[in-house]
Amino acid sequence: MIAPATTPTHPLLETHATALDEARAALAGRTWFSRYPESPSPRVYGEEAAGAGVTAHEAHLGHPYAALDDQPGDGSHVGGEVSPYGPRLGVTYPVLDLDRGLAAARAALPAWRDAGPQVRAAVCLEIIDRINARSFEMANAVMHTSGQPFVMSFQAGGPHAQDRAVEAVVAGLVEQERVPTSVVWEKPGRDRQGNPAPTRMQKDYRLVPRGVALVIGCNTFPTWNAYPGLFASLVTGNPVVVKPHPRAVLPLAVTVEVAREVLAEAGFDRALVQLAPEADGEGLARTLVERPEIVVVDYTGGPGFGSWLEENAAANGILVYTEKAGVNTVVVDSTDDLRGALGNLAFSLTLYSGQMCTAPQNIYVPEGGVDTDEGHLGFDEFGERLAAAIGRLTGDDAKAVELLGATVNDQVRSNADSLGRIADEAGGRVVLESRRVTHPTFADAVVRAPGLVALDVSREDVYTQECFGPVGFLVRTASTEQSLAQLADTVREHGAMTAAVYSTDERVLDAARDAAADAGVALSENLTGQVFVNQTAAFSDLHGTGANPAANAAYTDAAFVANRFRVITSRRHVA
Amino acid sequence: MIAPATTPTHPLLETHATALDEARAALAGRTWFSRYPESPSPRVYGEEAAGAGVTAHEAHLGHPYAALDDQPGDGSHVGGEVSPYGPRLGVTYPVLDLDRGLAAARAALPAWRDAGPQVRAAVCLEIIDRINARSFEMANAVMHTSGQPFVMSFQAGGPHAQDRAVEAVVAGLVEQERVPTSVVWEKPGRDRQGNPAPTRMQKDYRLVPRGVALVIGCNTFPTWNAYPGLFASLVTGNPVVVKPHPRAVLPLAVTVEVAREVLAEAGFDRALVQLAPEADGEGLARTLVERPEIVVVDYTGGPGFGSWLEENAAANGILVYTEKAGVNTVVVDSTDDLRGALGNLAFSLTLYSGQMCTAPQNIYVPEGGVDTDEGHLGFDEFGERLAAAIGRLTGDDAKAVELLGATVNDQVRSNADSLGRIADEAGGRVVLESRRVTHPTFADAVVRAPGLVALDVSREDVYTQECFGPVGFLVRTASTEQSLAQLADTVREHGAMTAAVYSTDERVLDAARDAAADAGVALSENLTGQVFVNQTAAFSDLHGTGANPAANAAYTDAAFVANRFRVITSRRHVA
Repeated sequence: MIAPATTPTHPLLETHATALDEARAALAGRTWFSRYPESPSPRVYGEEAAGAGVTAHEAHLGHPYAALDDQPGDGSHVGGEVSPYGPRLGVTYPVLDLDRGLAAARAALPAWRDAGPQVRAAVCLEIIDRINARSFEMANAVMHTSGQPFVMSFQAGGPHAQDRAVEAVVAGLVEQERVPTSVVWEKPGRDRQGNPAPTRMQKDYRLVPRGVALVIGCNTFPTWNAYPGLFASLVTGNPVVVKPHPRAVLPLAVTVEVAREVLAEAGFDRALVQLAPEADGEGLARTLVERPEIVVVDYTGGPGFGSWLEENAAANGILVYTEKAGVNTVVVDSTDDLRGALGNLAFSLTLYSGQMCTAPQNIYVPEGGVDTDEGHLGFDEFGERLAAAIGRLTGDDAKAVELLGATVNDQVRSNADSLGRIADEAGGRVVLESRRVTHPTFADAVVRAPGLVALDVSREDVYTQECFGPVGFLVRTASTEQSLAQLADTVREHGAMTAAVYSTDERVLDAARDAAADAGVALSENLTGQVFVNQTAAFSDLHGTGANPAANAAYTDAAFVANRFRVITSRRHVA
Repeated sequence: MIAPATTPTHPLLETHATALDEARAALAGRTWFSRYPESPSPRVYGEEAAGAGVTAHEAHLGHPYAALDDQPGDGSHVGGEVSPYGPRLGVTYPVLDLDRGLAAARAALPAWRDAGPQVRAAVCLEIIDRINARSFEMANAVMHTSGQPFVMSFQAGGPHAQDRAVEAVVAGLVEQERVPTSVVWEKPGRDRQGNPAPTRMQKDYRLVPRGVALVIGCNTFPTWNAYPGLFASLVTGNPVVVKPHPRAVLPLAVTVEVAREVLAEAGFDRALVQLAPEADGEGLARTLVERPEIVVVDYTGGPGFGSWLEENAAANGILVYTEKAGVNTVVVDSTDDLRGALGNLAFSLTLYSGQMCTAPQNIYVPEGGVDTDEGHLGFDEFGERLAAAIGRLTGDDAKAVELLGATVNDQVRSNADSLGRIADEAGGRVVLESRRVTHPTFADAVVRAPGLVALDVSREDVYTQECFGPVGFLVRTASTEQSLAQLADTVREHGAMTAAVYSTDERVLDAARDAAADAGVALSENLTGQVFVNQTAAFSDLHGTGANPAANAAYTDAAFVANRFRVITSRRHVA
């Protein structure tokens, strides 16, 4: 009998064994789990952490990013990031030589493959721990590329993204561990004399990665949306090329730097993770997707390139995981906590000026109005009350910017400026203008509070398109029944990352769950406190469903990881 | 707090609980497991079973298949099956009205979805048990559509296919059971007084199917290759339309009849499984794939339509699982059991005249020859010995037909007739002609024993194309090292379902395992007994790898089932 393959050993296995066990249990139960504290408080991360983060961030500004100089390249650099808060970052990044970079990635694959899933998971966890140690630096990098407010940059760009990374690592690990390394297969049988004579074979199952994976980052959540694909591919053995959005490179440069550092320390090839920066408009993502070496792609971004990817890359046998855009929907039927509901909705609309892929856009309210604990409100009254709640939340400029952040691009600013035109064209009415907010520190930042347009349900031509940024539509429906039917129809056709319902009626809630299941969108019910429809919790909430056009995948289910590796059997008779 | 959804109950749950538990354990451990005895012996299936099977089969012949008359249709029928053994079957099948049939499938979905995975798995198992009870009838149907010999028709078309069906059911069940139905998520926190004040939410996870699935059957293994996709889709909640190969309808008509019968008895809609027969050349598969209702496709067949599917259906967001074609490869280096190795190889080439997608085609032998327990054999000597082994196995017509079966189509017959031309064009030599075998019972059957052509490794133009049927290539290489390199290269580029190696040298076996892992093909080592490279065992051997161009999926791993359903979360605060 041939000895089974030796089990790989690595010092990091022991370091992270407990953490991986805890994460495994959380993923299986979908219970609360967080490895990294979300509070940027000095009591958690230390008195020096915030200052050190600023210092580290500022050290990058105006300089080439030298820590990636060991990537294959010819010495040329690109980089033109401008903070949505105003300042030009002045960081440049070494251009990756694709031929040499992709060859290096391929050459790095066998040793990483043969290290096995447990070692890979432990190395990934070490990478994420080290990224966590740079969370304040990362917060500054995310803030000055995405335009998120600081605390959100810290949380979503730091610990929350890191928790999603751990989730992807553990999902990939568990999936690989479901395949036994080896089995002795024994088929009962008898010889010619009728004595037991089983057929015995040893079967070894070898896990092999797909090949080189590509992660295409986005502008608004450069780390949060890149980490699931990055770590899902890495833990399943695939070298990864990270192509950041040209206006949000720095957070992923830091990420790639840390990954390469840890990989080298752990005895692996740095080429397992590489950064492929590009100048704005260069079209590098497409160039990369058309390279034969690239066989897995994770993409977050606009629907144009996303659909091209789904159509073309998939046709070339590339696995594609996309998150694009949709029309997130809220159905308002009734509430026994009007103040809580309005506050929650206002916050969801306000946070990062609606520039979250999960922010609500369409709020369906029946023309007959809404029963509440403060009495019945007509359609218009409800709109006024929601506008007032937004006003309270964003009325003070200094406080407002800590929620709103800055607008990330001209399209968002143009959307914010278009409420009057939209209302006119749609035969509707501006309920709340998108207020211009002055940033007390960054004079050049364009900061906008959410605005609201009321229109009729018949104007699908207007509200079934994504209007990214601080714009909400109050859609007047005939009834809650119509609201729910419209939710199902529009999400099925146009996609959505989130849906929410407010109702005191169990029958309406049941109908909402059915509508959400039919549409393939996750549902939040009666959120009135400190959980918001825009937010999903790693290990418990699936982000996206893969069941509607907004995204073909979800963070993180088995389908997100199971196809990133394949199983190769070898079998032989044994005595 | 809202009560969790009630757990569905069903009488079949208890009936099949033990069987499902056993199958779960086997799948997790990849150990030997079989629910259905593979022996057609009267001691196993009863003295009357074989005769009853013939009677049941013959009752179909010359008649419309009335048991499917309740499918939506206009009364028109199609059917033109001719047995590869000669007789025209004369069975016609009701044409499915696609508009009404697909609407019925959609309408049947919600109740099937809401029944939950356990009930679906139990109903599926009941269907398979009932199919098993018709195994002798099925064996006749498979024999007279595929041309397989009788015992193989019984085993591969019956119990082995049924075991693969159970495997798919359990794989899909386990995958769905990994998602909890509901969890109370509790995030630690403190109130303003510093007292513990966790945030608690109930999260319900609802499993939803993709939509209507399509299974496209093949001519040679109408049930074995259709069941994994059929049952994987069904157990995950997707209604299925079965589009059989126009020359192998009867085995799937029986299958669909049984499925509909059991579904109706179990309280579900028969429209969950429907047969969509077509006349030869009608192109119904393409018509179906282009219907918006169809969102999952399982396909076994030629690479032409398979590649079209991968390119076009995938681009339309349809999940596609394909098994196409490849060049299965054997590397011969050395052996300590020449007689066993030759016997095993001869059998693999002979079984069903090489018309298995897993049959070997290219046998790499070094020009320096092969060390064996009977001394050193030169390249030509090895060829002669293999030819002799094939001759011994197939020399007696009456015995030979029990292994060879009948040729399934003109392409196979043409390939069998082309050995001289191929050898001439390739500068090679016919080592063994494909002998014409006379069937003692069916005078019209075209039966061919395997032939062998020796050629040089440089003639990739010849041996890297699939030459379906009783044709083997003895490829003369410079060395075993070159044989292994060529295995990896050709499989990576042209695909393969199987690979095998014969060597007494552990270093060669190690190198073969590496080559197989690089190429993404399963490896059988030193098979000299009653296990053949063509055969894979349900629950243990993966059929295909999804890692080379021959197939984009494998029976049955997590990736084959995980994406056939999606998870929809609904969440709400609880006290």
